[in-house]
Amino acid sequence: MSLNTFGHLFRVTTWGESHGPAIGCTVDGCPPGVALSEADIQPWLDRRKPGQNKFTTQRKEPDEVRILSGVYEGRTTGTPIQLMIENTDQRSKDYGDIAQSFRPGHADITYHQKYGLRDPRGGGRSSARETASRVAAGGVARAALAALVPGLKITGYMVQMGVKGIDRSRFDAEEIERNPFWVPDPVAAAEWAEYLDDLRLSHNSVGAVIEVMAEGVPPGLGAPIYGKLDSDLAAAMMSINAVKGVEIGEGMAAAALTGVENADEIRMGPNGPEYLSNHAGGILGGISTGQPVVCRFAVKPTSSILTPRQTITTGGAEVDLVTKGRHDPCVGIRAVPVGEAMMACVLLDHLLLDRGQTGGVRGPIGQ
Amino acid sequence: MSLNTFGHLFRVTTWGESHGPAIGCTVDGCPPGVALSEADIQPWLDRRKPGQNKFTTQRKEPDEVRILSGVYEGRTTGTPIQLMIENTDQRSKDYGDIAQSFRPGHADITYHQKYGLRDPRGGGRSSARETASRVAAGGVARAALAALVPGLKITGYMVQMGVKGIDRSRFDAEEIERNPFWVPDPVAAAEWAEYLDDLRLSHNSVGAVIEVMAEGVPPGLGAPIYGKLDSDLAAAMMSINAVKGVEIGEGMAAAALTGVENADEIRMGPNGPEYLSNHAGGILGGISTGQPVVCRFAVKPTSSILTPRQTITTGGAEVDLVTKGRHDPCVGIRAVPVGEAMMACVLLDHLLLDRGQTGGVRGPIGQ
Amino acid sequence: MSLNTFGHLFRVTTWGESHGPAIGCTVDGCPPGVALSEADIQPWLDRRKPGQNKFTTQRKEPDEVRILSGVYEGRTTGTPIQLMIENTDQRSKDYGDIAQSFRPGHADITYHQKYGLRDPRGGGRSSARETASRVAAGGVARAALAALVPGLKITGYMVQMGVKGIDRSRFDAEEIERNPFWVPDPVAAAEWAEYLDDLRLSHNSVGAVIEVMAEGVPPGLGAPIYGKLDSDLAAAMMSINAVKGVEIGEGMAAAALTGVENADEIRMGPNGPEYLSNHAGGILGGISTGQPVVCRFAVKPTSSILTPRQTITTGGAEVDLVTKGRHDPCVGIRAVPVGEAMMACVLLDHLLLDRGQTGGVRGPIGQ
Amino acid sequence: MSLNTFGHLFRVTTWGESHGPAIGCTVDGCPPGVALSEADIQPWLDRRKPGQNKFTTQRKEPDEVRILSGVYEGRTTGTPIQLMIENTDQRSKDYGDIAQSFRPGHADITYHQKYGLRDPRGGGRSSARETASRVAAGGVARAALAALVPGLKITGYMVQMGVKGIDRSRFDAEEIERNPFWVPDPVAAAEWAEYLDDLRLSHNSVGAVIEVMAEGVPPGLGAPIYGKLDSDLAAAMMSINAVKGVEIGEGMAAAALTGVENADEIRMGPNGPEYLSNHAGGILGGISTGQPVVCRFAVKPTSSILTPRQTITTGGAEVDLVTKGRHDPCVGIRAVPVGEAMMACVLLDHLLLDRGQTGGVRGPIGQ
Repeated sequence: MSLNTFGHLFRVTTWGESHGPAIGCTVDGCPPGVALSEADIQPWLDRRKPGQNKFTTQRKEPDEVRILSGVYEGRTTGTPIQLMIENTDQRSKDYGDIAQSFRPGHADITYHQKYGLRDPRGGGRSSARETASRVAAGGVARAALAALVPGLKITGYMVQMGVKGIDRSRFDAEEIERNPFWVPDPVAAAEWAEYLDDLRLSHNSVGAVIEVMAEGVPPGLGAPIYGKLDSDLAAAMMSINAVKGVEIGEGMAAAALTGVENADEIRMGPNGPEYLSNHAGGILGGISTGQPVVCRFAVKPTSSILTPRQTITTGGAEVDLVTKGRHDPCVGIRAVPVGEAMMACVLLDHLLLDRGQTGGVRGPIGQ
Repeated sequence: MSLNTFGHLFRVTTWGESHGPAIGCTVDGCPPGVALSEADIQPWLDRRKPGQNKFTTQRKEPDEVRILSGVYEGRTTGTPIQLMIENTDQRSKDYGDIAQSFRPGHADITYHQKYGLRDPRGGGRSSARETASRVAAGGVARAALAALVPGLKITGYMVQMGVKGIDRSRFDAEEIERNPFWVPDPVAAAEWAEYLDDLRLSHNSVGAVIEVMAEGVPPGLGAPIYGKLDSDLAAAMMSINAVKGVEIGEGMAAAALTGVENADEIRMGPNGPEYLSNHAGGILGGISTGQPVVCRFAVKPTSSILTPRQTITTGGAEVDLVTKGRHDPCVGIRAVPVGEAMMACVLLDHLLLDRGQTGGVRGPIGQ
Repeated sequence: MSLNTFGHLFRVTTWGESHGPAIGCTVDGCPPGVALSEADIQPWLDRRKPGQNKFTTQRKEPDEVRILSGVYEGRTTGTPIQLMIENTDQRSKDYGDIAQSFRPGHADITYHQKYGLRDPRGGGRSSARETASRVAAGGVARAALAALVPGLKITGYMVQMGVKGIDRSRFDAEEIERNPFWVPDPVAAAEWAEYLDDLRLSHNSVGAVIEVMAEGVPPGLGAPIYGKLDSDLAAAMMSINAVKGVEIGEGMAAAALTGVENADEIRMGPNGPEYLSNHAGGILGGISTGQPVVCRFAVKPTSSILTPRQTITTGGAEVDLVTKGRHDPCVGIRAVPVGEAMMACVLLDHLLLDRGQTGGVRGPIGQ
Repeated sequence: MSLNTFGHLFRVTTWGESHGPAIGCTVDGCPPGVALSEADIQPWLDRRKPGQNKFTTQRKEPDEVRILSGVYEGRTTGTPIQLMIENTDQRSKDYGDIAQSFRPGHADITYHQKYGLRDPRGGGRSSARETASRVAAGGVARAALAALVPGLKITGYMVQMGVKGIDRSRFDAEEIERNPFWVPDPVAAAEWAEYLDDLRLSHNSVGAVIEVMAEGVPPGLGAPIYGKLDSDLAAAMMSINAVKGVEIGEGMAAAALTGVENADEIRMGPNGPEYLSNHAGGILGGISTGQPVVCRFAVKPTSSILTPRQTITTGGAEVDLVTKGRHDPCVGIRAVPVGEAMMACVLLDHLLLDRGQTGGVRGPIGQ
């Protein structure tokens, strides 16, 4: 990952400021011959877009994607695919007051210090608007994955919102698309609605934990030592706005387990190795095992919360800042499609990297 | 990070198998003119090396590093620095039984599946022995950092071992070097000694959480969006053997905080911005704030624990495996110097990247 | 250089097919604070664009560039700069006949073999239209160079067209902008006009040699061994459509020189080292000396020349192909601005890389 | 290519100074399962090594390579392969006089200016000794190519020495290994011996042109636009010490050809497309055609020639320098194995890159 490009062979470069004319990305290295049109990408953007329900931000962007290159007669050509999304609903005046102040918890101050200047409108390049470009790239990745690994399935969902968790014994994948939180626990869905309403009315915000699971991942993906699959997933998720922690499998909880509890034992099944558990989260030594890849990341709460906060200005004066305008009481909700998109991009990237390095031939077990 | 190299400008490539003749690394992009000799690197390796006390593995390697290039008359030349450490205490017979079996929780099976073959002795390339190369590279990074950012200080320590944590109100940095756990809480140090003795006698193992703090980091380091400082730290720590989670600042706990609790407010001090807290862990928008950079990672427990585990062989037969030989009841202890080394390498890398991209000039505040 | 991105720190990714809706590029890593607007880039595109005189292709594109990101209030922000140029004058019917045939000397057959499909309209991604994106990126590079190295000057010109050369004793830099060939020899300018008219009428084409000279380049740019300045220039120029050779300084002719003739002797001047000649072309050991950097590249003749050529179809049938439509009798003429743009991008890239690696401080001579 | 690493997937990092204890390289990304031992690499080093005949330098190094990692039971494991060659015959006193002076035509001055210091012994890192590491890496590449593309054959030879060329009508590949110049023209071999004797006696030196031809290259290798096969070859050859020009196919001479003369017409053969000529040198649009890949590069004459040259010292004093010691009257001779090694590395790299990006499946013609 470097500057504004991530990926080794499937390389995505995003561009665009929150209040600029457009945002977009260049997707380079997509295998040729994959069926692709705007219709394959738009639904993923629609899932993510603002203004969908009362819990997420009120900015109303159609987020309509256009494919400007890299596709001919409905198939990818192997050349760079340029995706562009025009911005239409910027309300620059919402941020007018704060161009000289640094919003606590935001990148305003660090962008100013690093670059000497910044586009303050909507957070400029540091805004989560950038994640729309990722979701678009994820749409391309999913199309390629569908062609290369038909059984592969990626599902993202929330497992925690603020202090509220889920009961995994009630885990129902079908529930994910039925509630506005993408939470797989129907009881939690109801509780969280009430919880978030209260937060909204008190002008506060909370963080969230999102889990992304990929099933049907072939074994052997990952390029140790420094191109490990879990390293790349960690970098990918940590790069999402407001993320402060990333976990694979048991994650931080692995520290408290004993060796007996943690290791996933192996038996032989009709189709190859079968694991008796998945504490590893589908990755051993940085390489996929064939088990579901399970990755979680934590999103911190939004800072822009209508409560006065102590901060300073570019001129060094101390002020109390109250941010108005449109804000998410829980940005984490909208990170679900973003986490899925990053998972798709990283998995496709590693599929290509693996077949480049090894030809994709697996060491036999039992044959 | 790619394949076996990490870093953008300060690029480290490691090589070597656990039971091969040697291990080492090529450090490319170290600034010229830095005073460097083996004496600057050896102490960091000595901190890490096996056989230091009864709690860590009994393999006795001198881990003596040689500088084979890149230094002339005691100063770095700006050309690649080759560091080599000869292996002397390989006990290949310890692993003889398991060449055909896959140790649960280890990379044996995934290396076999990906590459079709593997060096099974001591875990080959997947062994934690590789981390000695990182620590050596970290020694070079520290030497360069000392020249470029004299006030910068990196400290690693354990904050959790198995189910045992620390009491941060008793945090004493001086305690870190006084106990075999590098834990900054003297009460914990005593408790953990007893706890680990029990585990050792029961042939079990536990995981750990290591925290690495960097103080005196200048603001402005990090290259958003995909070269963010926290992304690179996440990838770096996740790449360490047995790591399953990485956190910055509040980490996963940020999800449960409210916006009011989480944002670090800012006031103006005599030397520039002063933060009233550090929930962010020193990084905002992927760029350092000047606050201490705080990174934590969780190491899972060792799998090689003398208890029979169900597994399979390369031939697909189901067996119960008992691993004998030398093993750590808590590998996490030895990950402390490794985490410090990765922090040093990533920070130096970003220092160079920042001065390349921006000239290192900071946007003024208050002047 | 990788896939569709070139550069280490100043990284340019181009996209777009000849007959797609648009072409463009993402310029990543431009230093912040540089004054930039469309007016800084458009003139370079105007120099390159088709339809300028009777000697170049008749396709009439306005080549109007838009800046979609990375600039705020007239200054670069350090974030990716997206440049887009809409295509308006595609005549897809000109290529209708040949969608199934492979034009000899073109990339049609290799793109088909590698990717399995291709956009045949105007050569798709393999068309020299892609070079407009490079020239746009070159405009950004020039703006940054003007800010960072005020005395640096890049000049491109033709030194050979077909069998016609120039007389270097008549070299007049002012002449370059006065004739349609950018040739610095007024006598040659007249001769070449006649020569090219003849070729045009006989439906033939010739190649060309373009030389690009950069003056005022500071010493010390280049990152040996594999990031040498001349290596990157060679890759950059060879990547231009139809290029078959690249030279630095004496180039291929250096082979015939003796050691006495070739080495540039050095004396001491008021401002530092002064070279008595420049056979080296401004680069020694892959690093700039401070002398003018002199780079030449040869462009092969256009293949699309209205003469029947033997070729095959995708179906494997043997056919005689006659390409109609708009074609250049000498594509080399329009490569002059492209060569200049590549020189600008590579030099800026190395300026940033050098200051990243060394801080830009030079080893003193004589002080 | 970056800093001291070249390659996209087959990545070679070299290290080592001419008079340091050793030189070597890390070869990362070699496919697993390739049969490899020192015996596969040593012969290539023996071809290159100094002291072979009276025409090349008199430094006598055994150039004995050791494989320190990445191979197990005679097969590559897919992990990094460390190759090391110890230096044994450094005569540092040969260079003692010139530590403070800059040899004209050498990188002494530019290394001093860029880095502030340099290892002057034998040219340090800028010495052609570094090419031994490349030849070793080339040995690994050849082993992998032999496994993956059995028919692929790489042959390097000289086509020009000083003012002496060859007669291609007398081209005899068998002659290459029969004379000390690796020249495929027996008449030239005799002439050149005399020519070089004269130069040697007069303490002068000349340059050379080396051609490397690769036969049996599958079509489809190369990653346009900026990972073109010819771009990577140009960078690879230009990175070799003393190289000043690189050509593909007709090279610089393509400029003087007409379109009728230059385009390679295509017919259909029993095994696929057959080209009627190969002016393109086996590459179209940056992608291999299946025709022999033909690459030439020019090496400038050695500067160290026992004739006094005007130069300056680090202190800025003007001196006349006479370099004594061991020197090549024609370094070009020893560049032949180096060019072959670079060709092998680049082709293998692109084979892996292509199968990563496209799966290696070719678009059908005629089937």
